[in-house]
Amino acid sequence: MPKLHPLTFISAALACTLVHAADPAKVPPAITDVPSEVGVMVGSPPLPENQVNLRNYASPRFMRWTLAHMSSVFHTERVSRGSGKPTDLPAGKPLDIDALRVDWQGQPTAMAQAFRILGADAFLVLHRGQVVFERYFGDMTPTTLHATNSCTKSFVGTLAATLANEGKLDLNAPASRYVPELASSALGPAKIRDLLDMRANFRFGDDVHQAGSLQVGALQAYGVLPRPPNYTGPDGSIAMMLAAHPTTEHGVGPMRYDNGSAEALGWVLSRVTGKSVPDLISERLWQPMGAEQDADFLLDSRKAPIAAFGLQANARDLARFGEMIRNQGRVGDKQVVPSAVVSEIRRGGDRAAFAASPDAAVLPGGSYHDMWWFNHDELDSFQCQGQFAQRVWIAPKAEVVIVLLSADPDASRSREPLRLAAFRAIARALTN
Amino acid sequence: MPKLHPLTFISAALACTLVHAADPAKVPPAITDVPSEVGVMVGSPPLPENQVNLRNYASPRFMRWTLAHMSSVFHTERVSRGSGKPTDLPAGKPLDIDALRVDWQGQPTAMAQAFRILGADAFLVLHRGQVVFERYFGDMTPTTLHATNSCTKSFVGTLAATLANEGKLDLNAPASRYVPELASSALGPAKIRDLLDMRANFRFGDDVHQAGSLQVGALQAYGVLPRPPNYTGPDGSIAMMLAAHPTTEHGVGPMRYDNGSAEALGWVLSRVTGKSVPDLISERLWQPMGAEQDADFLLDSRKAPIAAFGLQANARDLARFGEMIRNQGRVGDKQVVPSAVVSEIRRGGDRAAFAASPDAAVLPGGSYHDMWWFNHDELDSFQCQGQFAQRVWIAPKAEVVIVLLSADPDASRSREPLRLAAFRAIARALTN
Repeated sequence: MPKLHPLTFISAALACTLVHAADPAKVPPAITDVPSEVGVMVGSPPLPENQVNLRNYASPRFMRWTLAHMSSVFHTERVSRGSGKPTDLPAGKPLDIDALRVDWQGQPTAMAQAFRILGADAFLVLHRGQVVFERYFGDMTPTTLHATNSCTKSFVGTLAATLANEGKLDLNAPASRYVPELASSALGPAKIRDLLDMRANFRFGDDVHQAGSLQVGALQAYGVLPRPPNYTGPDGSIAMMLAAHPTTEHGVGPMRYDNGSAEALGWVLSRVTGKSVPDLISERLWQPMGAEQDADFLLDSRKAPIAAFGLQANARDLARFGEMIRNQGRVGDKQVVPSAVVSEIRRGGDRAAFAASPDAAVLPGGSYHDMWWFNHDELDSFQCQGQFAQRVWIAPKAEVVIVLLSADPDASRSREPLRLAAFRAIARALTN
Repeated sequence: MPKLHPLTFISAALACTLVHAADPAKVPPAITDVPSEVGVMVGSPPLPENQVNLRNYASPRFMRWTLAHMSSVFHTERVSRGSGKPTDLPAGKPLDIDALRVDWQGQPTAMAQAFRILGADAFLVLHRGQVVFERYFGDMTPTTLHATNSCTKSFVGTLAATLANEGKLDLNAPASRYVPELASSALGPAKIRDLLDMRANFRFGDDVHQAGSLQVGALQAYGVLPRPPNYTGPDGSIAMMLAAHPTTEHGVGPMRYDNGSAEALGWVLSRVTGKSVPDLISERLWQPMGAEQDADFLLDSRKAPIAAFGLQANARDLARFGEMIRNQGRVGDKQVVPSAVVSEIRRGGDRAAFAASPDAAVLPGGSYHDMWWFNHDELDSFQCQGQFAQRVWIAPKAEVVIVLLSADPDASRSREPLRLAAFRAIARALTN
């Protein structure tokens, strides 16, 4: 692969800020080198130049390994699956994926090639709750936990929508009602619904949401990049939230995607329930849906769970989560999330606000609601999205759920048309 | 609890060096304060004085929390359970543990009191493979991963004995046959059987096995304590192994317990199989025995798995492991470890070499073999042992397995008589 400066990758690292209007010449390719084949962390001990650490993990050479070994580089907390038997993920009639072609840059492209272009680490397709395709690439296995990055936000959004449904969270209340400390921050007056729909307006961290910026400051503040010796920036996500600067009024203007909204929601959820976000995911989602593995959750420098991008999970449990949402909150006979919550999520968001945002260039006609991304297409499809192209794509009208875990560092999401074309081609093949 | 200098605890932290001939007045009590009740890591955010980090975790105030949150403080790697259904851990006729008394310091002591004296975090009893008692203390739950510390060694020993049984490891070969780099180290000429039985003689790390020393140097070398700014010591366990100093001939003299032997075995296992110790535990033990949770494995500063004390697991999966060993390597119809390997382990070790060691004061009449501790009592009992009093105690003649996870910082093991008396009273009650 071409040599890129590590900072090119840091820009696309853990947080999920968009870089808009990408110059195609500057779009980094997906990472397809297999870590074990190029020597990364191979051997006992690995050669010094092959050892990953907090200083070098964001380099193109090490990032694919890191996405699949987060707890070896960062500090994490468990998301327990409980003690029971995992729910079945039954096998269905295998999908002949090799028969499918998708259009990419004017060329009919085989799926195997598409997986390569997209830097796929794992690809799993459920149709009517049955596994019709499951493939792992490089060193990935069915049990490898992979960073989901900002897919985490959709878990946070689903939890918040559930608490609202239970009457424990007032969507019209300002965040400061639940977290009084936020009164002095630009985040304080933001309504819960503004946070959920990315309609809060503020500046979070030093440079975290300046489109195209390197995000180094924010990642140092989170503690997921080393800090310089005389670092004086914020220590952890709470410090960043408290220092959020006001910009314009909340709840108006374009949808504006920002980690700060998810962090504030995570803080609110913790105060409302007295439980951490990873514990809430465990109790309300992971355990009742019958996950087969514990997940992991990234901690910041103060050991606060990073609500904006903390979750690591395997493809099969992410598929269970997507299938539960597709199935109106049910897993078998068990209602894990109230059906009304899923219906509310599936209403989607304000399409005009989305059209006015730079994200409309990537998802034209889309919207954002309850921390999910909506395509408003003929399949009613919607998804979670995480940096390096993590996706759980749900297409209710095709009864399809697709999990894609990948190592695509392109923060401009210039390969989104190929991803969506692949998802849709599979949905079409399964419904024909 | 009385205030103790943090270094008192560091001495008893993760590694398992013995402190002999303890002065009873200096024996620290078990930690019984419940972290969540005394504010440790409570709140979002916790008060600054309640936040655990790499500098303060070894203090009496924070150590109990840390034993149950290792991946939040250190770097870890997963030990995968695989994707299948966990094996059953069926409930048996409940043991009336409150009816039992054990003698401690001349007083009949109720079990509830014994648990408190021993700083129990979890206590689980299997009789004929059925759970007859299972209790968690403080913040512990059935799914909490707890440091097993040097219980890890018995996993390493079991793996090595299995590879020897398969002809992949020659017990009479020197370690340097498998790891040529060790030729220049005092560990190189040690035979595999000397390492397995703690009959290798050398000095490991700066001060790691000087009885009663603070071990700060070794823990800094592992990277599990912060290093001073001008630190020039070894970086990681491999560097410590390479720097091991010769003392006397291997294979003679008293049994001499040392982390270095386990580290060397871990290195040998990795070279023989091409797999890391955590991956070997997953493939050969955790997956086939049907664990219900992934375990975690501690990494050193170079991200090498710490074979001497790296494993964290929940009590229920440790019980499955113990029951598999008690059952001659079988779980249900599946032979997980060859029966001959368990028989070889159960032969026990050289009792004269053990009698000549300081450990004989704690386990009189005992021995050490294949990284397990033997009591040579009427129950044929043996156990793994980890610092802060982690135990999996197996009593074949009583068909009993007991898991004790605890927070007892007494490196002199002065409360061992109470622990063993409790185990034996339970075995007696179950077999009467």
